[in-house]
Amino acid sequence: MSTSRLEAFSDGVIAVAITLLVLNIDLPDLRAGQSLAGGLIGQWPVYVAYAVSFLTIGIIWINHHVMIARLREADRTILFLNLLLLMSIALLPFATRLMAAYLRHSHGQHLATGIYSGSFLLMALCFATLNRHILLAKAHMLQRELPIEQRRQILYRSIAGVVPYAIATALAVVSAYLTLAICAALAIFYALPIGSGGAEPVP
Amino acid sequence: MSTSRLEAFSDGVIAVAITLLVLNIDLPDLRAGQSLAGGLIGQWPVYVAYAVSFLTIGIIWINHHVMIARLREADRTILFLNLLLLMSIALLPFATRLMAAYLRHSHGQHLATGIYSGSFLLMALCFATLNRHILLAKAHMLQRELPIEQRRQILYRSIAGVVPYAIATALAVVSAYLTLAICAALAIFYALPIGSGGAEPVP
Amino acid sequence: MSTSRLEAFSDGVIAVAITLLVLNIDLPDLRAGQSLAGGLIGQWPVYVAYAVSFLTIGIIWINHHVMIARLREADRTILFLNLLLLMSIALLPFATRLMAAYLRHSHGQHLATGIYSGSFLLMALCFATLNRHILLAKAHMLQRELPIEQRRQILYRSIAGVVPYAIATALAVVSAYLTLAICAALAIFYALPIGSGGAEPVP
Amino acid sequence: MSTSRLEAFSDGVIAVAITLLVLNIDLPDLRAGQSLAGGLIGQWPVYVAYAVSFLTIGIIWINHHVMIARLREADRTILFLNLLLLMSIALLPFATRLMAAYLRHSHGQHLATGIYSGSFLLMALCFATLNRHILLAKAHMLQRELPIEQRRQILYRSIAGVVPYAIATALAVVSAYLTLAICAALAIFYALPIGSGGAEPVP
Repeated sequence: MSTSRLEAFSDGVIAVAITLLVLNIDLPDLRAGQSLAGGLIGQWPVYVAYAVSFLTIGIIWINHHVMIARLREADRTILFLNLLLLMSIALLPFATRLMAAYLRHSHGQHLATGIYSGSFLLMALCFATLNRHILLAKAHMLQRELPIEQRRQILYRSIAGVVPYAIATALAVVSAYLTLAICAALAIFYALPIGSGGAEPVP
Repeated sequence: MSTSRLEAFSDGVIAVAITLLVLNIDLPDLRAGQSLAGGLIGQWPVYVAYAVSFLTIGIIWINHHVMIARLREADRTILFLNLLLLMSIALLPFATRLMAAYLRHSHGQHLATGIYSGSFLLMALCFATLNRHILLAKAHMLQRELPIEQRRQILYRSIAGVVPYAIATALAVVSAYLTLAICAALAIFYALPIGSGGAEPVP
Repeated sequence: MSTSRLEAFSDGVIAVAITLLVLNIDLPDLRAGQSLAGGLIGQWPVYVAYAVSFLTIGIIWINHHVMIARLREADRTILFLNLLLLMSIALLPFATRLMAAYLRHSHGQHLATGIYSGSFLLMALCFATLNRHILLAKAHMLQRELPIEQRRQILYRSIAGVVPYAIATALAVVSAYLTLAICAALAIFYALPIGSGGAEPVP
Repeated sequence: MSTSRLEAFSDGVIAVAITLLVLNIDLPDLRAGQSLAGGLIGQWPVYVAYAVSFLTIGIIWINHHVMIARLREADRTILFLNLLLLMSIALLPFATRLMAAYLRHSHGQHLATGIYSGSFLLMALCFATLNRHILLAKAHMLQRELPIEQRRQILYRSIAGVVPYAIATALAVVSAYLTLAICAALAIFYALPIGSGGAEPVP
């Protein structure tokens, strides 16, 4: 399969998933006597969750493009691993809603935030697995030959992306807010050009 | 019509349908005293339904691409049959929600799982019908000529894909879990490269 | 603007609208003692509405492609009229839900079905307006020159498509079921190759 | 990254956001004795909100295309600023729902309409920021060289687009209806060819 079809379908799924996030922002349920301003401010975890998930999915879209652009064509194994990656991305609207709903509940906040961060961890793992398969097992299908050291270097960077999410997920046992803060910091860091290798042209 | 337009529209519908599946995963409605963990684990049929439907739609997307890639152009009959196929795919979020909601109800589980499996059966039938029309009636519109034996062979494989879903649907009378297990096994089998002809390049 | 961008965006909106229709099919709300089968059968207007709207949007997608394929480029007026057409298409999931909800209510069924049919009428009017603008005012932007008689003939066919929906909408005063039957008959007639000029290749 | 990938993804997000607006139009909740016609008419703010938001997103899509079409390629900073712009667009279905729900409430109407208009302001600001970055900092990445005066002129027009939304947002303190009227007038003005430079071909 040409990679342009693969990219078009993946773009579609990622674009729908990122836009569906807005359905998680409901109108506030005002308690008796509560003002609209109070209700809107009171649901701030919903906005934070929206922004962090939006940026994170946006970053994975850029990285996905860079990864697939290295390929000349795709085979069944690549399609299968890509499908698992898309499944992990398409799940994020649910994890986002769950985290936002429970962040301030004394009961459930650790679990909900752990699942949120764990969903990013799963996505990063799916990404690294596909990248590893492309760079090592399917090196002959690359757009242009890359020396093994360079391929290893790219791969190490992919795998390094898994580590902070693993830490954030583990720390959910300690503090839900800490986990969320790490996820937010990662989203901002990777989104900013400085965190992703400066203003170099993306291949 | 050029097949690239047909593919772009079909890709769009399939990408939206596969991503809408996540809307079926609601936050658990906790009973008094139930923990969030208990509520999340309690709705496991929702996750199984999500994964099976996601993989199955992903597979039909790959197969759809292979089928259309054989065509040079499309006429009205092909567009009409393709529209029916898309309609059967776009219905899957509903069938998935129905099955997940009733899987563990003593009342309704057989019917709901039968409709779920029956939706896959309908999709497989629409697929085989369109494939048959392309390979037999519209052979002159193929990208490159294929001998009739080869076209028949491709078609037999399409029709063979209908059989396991027919069996799974019939068995819903006996056991909802058995039907679901067959659907899940088919999704995994076809998704894995081994179940779909190895790591050969997809045309 | 190149028409390929225009087509890609229009395809996106139409693909999302056609796929969102499935959100109109809710799980049946079972009354005490009602079986799932009874509940599912009881909401048959929902399925009819789904199928009629799906086919109708599918047909407008094909016609939209044929109309835009005649153009070499698009200007602001074309973009604006196209936006109005897309707005009328994007409204159909609401009109579909309204009709399905009220079809069997003695109160409201005429109005709801009139709005349903009226939405198709509005869409057909937007389509004919854009087609008229392209064929008469922007004839110099066509892909290849067409004699005025041929352009008029194409336009008459567009305008003729408005008439049956106008009749169906007017008849909603008499009978909701009659209106729905006409909309369904039109969807099937235009979808079938026989109703749209046989198996000729679509340009 | 080639701008065609950037456009395809942005088109996807914008197409989904514009089509999701229809989910804001619920069936009317009829009070005892209220007719369907009364219920439908009673929720007129929902329709106005739908039309204004649909047109405004449609206009931003056209402007986005014109802006990106000037570029030869995109770097990380452009991708990041574009992601912020898409986030502001994807938020509009929520702002639209909020405004429609509170427009006629004596309590909350000023705030809700201010947020609605403020969302358009945010979108216009994101747009002007990205445009500024492209025209001034990344002038060497333009499709073809533009003299600095011409780039400044384009930029002034972008920044001028921010002003009316700032005024509309400020006026929400005075009257929610006035703010909505300005937003509606802007949508119509920019959508009409006369408000956007006549029938010139869009680059």
